[in-house]
Amino acid sequence: MSGTVFTRPHRIHFSECDPAGIVFYPQYFVLFNDLMEAWVDSLLPGKGEGFAGLIGVRRVGLPTVRLEVDFKAVSRMGDDVTLRLQVQRLGRSSITLGLACLGADGQPRMQALQTVVCTSLHTHQAIEVPADLRAAIGAVD
Amino acid sequence: MSGTVFTRPHRIHFSECDPAGIVFYPQYFVLFNDLMEAWVDSLLPGKGEGFAGLIGVRRVGLPTVRLEVDFKAVSRMGDDVTLRLQVQRLGRSSITLGLACLGADGQPRMQALQTVVCTSLHTHQAIEVPADLRAAIGAVD
Amino acid sequence: MSGTVFTRPHRIHFSECDPAGIVFYPQYFVLFNDLMEAWVDSLLPGKGEGFAGLIGVRRVGLPTVRLEVDFKAVSRMGDDVTLRLQVQRLGRSSITLGLACLGADGQPRMQALQTVVCTSLHTHQAIEVPADLRAAIGAVD
Amino acid sequence: MSGTVFTRPHRIHFSECDPAGIVFYPQYFVLFNDLMEAWVDSLLPGKGEGFAGLIGVRRVGLPTVRLEVDFKAVSRMGDDVTLRLQVQRLGRSSITLGLACLGADGQPRMQALQTVVCTSLHTHQAIEVPADLRAAIGAVD
Repeated sequence: MSGTVFTRPHRIHFSECDPAGIVFYPQYFVLFNDLMEAWVDSLLPGKGEGFAGLIGVRRVGLPTVRLEVDFKAVSRMGDDVTLRLQVQRLGRSSITLGLACLGADGQPRMQALQTVVCTSLHTHQAIEVPADLRAAIGAVD
Repeated sequence: MSGTVFTRPHRIHFSECDPAGIVFYPQYFVLFNDLMEAWVDSLLPGKGEGFAGLIGVRRVGLPTVRLEVDFKAVSRMGDDVTLRLQVQRLGRSSITLGLACLGADGQPRMQALQTVVCTSLHTHQAIEVPADLRAAIGAVD
Repeated sequence: MSGTVFTRPHRIHFSECDPAGIVFYPQYFVLFNDLMEAWVDSLLPGKGEGFAGLIGVRRVGLPTVRLEVDFKAVSRMGDDVTLRLQVQRLGRSSITLGLACLGADGQPRMQALQTVVCTSLHTHQAIEVPADLRAAIGAVD
Repeated sequence: MSGTVFTRPHRIHFSECDPAGIVFYPQYFVLFNDLMEAWVDSLLPGKGEGFAGLIGVRRVGLPTVRLEVDFKAVSRMGDDVTLRLQVQRLGRSSITLGLACLGADGQPRMQALQTVVCTSLHTHQAIEVPADLRAAIGAVD
């Protein structure tokens, strides 16, 4: 499997919603961060590896440098949605991800283009995308 | 199946951890709220039912009135834990839940005793536990 | 005072930071939402007014429809920053806000352009910016 | 001033409330953690000191080991409340805090008894309360 598309089902939680009864929009970014984490776990599946290994052991960070987001329709408590991650571009240090929350009808409720950069958590400076992560992501069209 | 015990596996997310690299303790209560929601979804599985139906359609709230918590061991980013809910007491209006986060060794990292009360979200006053929810929970020893 | 610029000092909390010791980026949007709320409170200061009155009594929502964000430098736990909101455009139904988190040196750590739309919380459909809010915002250059 | 009582005014944010329009209870613990942080900042006010210095530089953690909470009345979006911290007991390694959220009428909406333990963030083992923090807290009746 290519590492370039990754989806997860999700039911919108009470804890993610605001007094208007819809997803409080910063929660989408928490959901997307959890999705990116599950994606990295799937790419680097060994013991002591995965996202926790990358951050906690290898001290490689993945901070966001750019984010563009369009919100098209609201999501309500209890809605069954699909969270989707697609690699749009794999650079020397950066990875650009297309992220979306899709309704049960497959239509995007909201979608984001997010660029993260690999950094050393010792210096917070950019470093190259680690070779094993790059290999696991594979070819990006 | 009795509605009295309910468990879910969970991998501790980066988003749940603090600068000490361990779960930021208020996040346990978010996890437990999500667990209670999944439990109610399992008890009232029909379309338009579940936790979202209870809160959003029937306007029945489940606010917490009492909470006692013991923290025994830390949980780190990436840890695979089990979240467990057990009904301890089913009263006229209240439900007392035993909640725990168990490590891979089955030992509790932390555990809580939480009493929630059924309320009308119109008045925020206590009401009886709805009959279908009571029946689904079943006998509590 | 024109309603077009609004700032608040903020000290970065432990609770806003991640295992890398820096602000977990979705927390910036929580901070900006709290800032927008304080801004609306300042524009509509009467009893039962403010953001809570707008949402809870008048049932006017301000959901986000578009967000563009650039992250330039990290913020660490304990950093004293300034949160700044500037009205960029006041449309018929929409308000475009320039938001920034500035370091003690006045340089932006991150900045966002956010478009919110006034909606009816009964229908989630767009409505005109309420007249009193428009008047309080005043002229936008 | 003794370090044994500390209060802060707070207006309940939209971001802290749930679809029932009231404070989502885990948010109280975020508010109390921020309060404890401001309290430590007031006790250890030097540059590079405060809560961030304790955690980030001196690597002293303050994890919670025990929590007892009673919820008596709801808090709604926009409510002006007072957050109060009182030292109840100062042990060798542990500090027991009485925490409360008080309404505008001075009555507690909810209150908690929280025991935190000073730990080394290198070992996550208990250590003595640092001498300067103990001195700043002062005598506890």
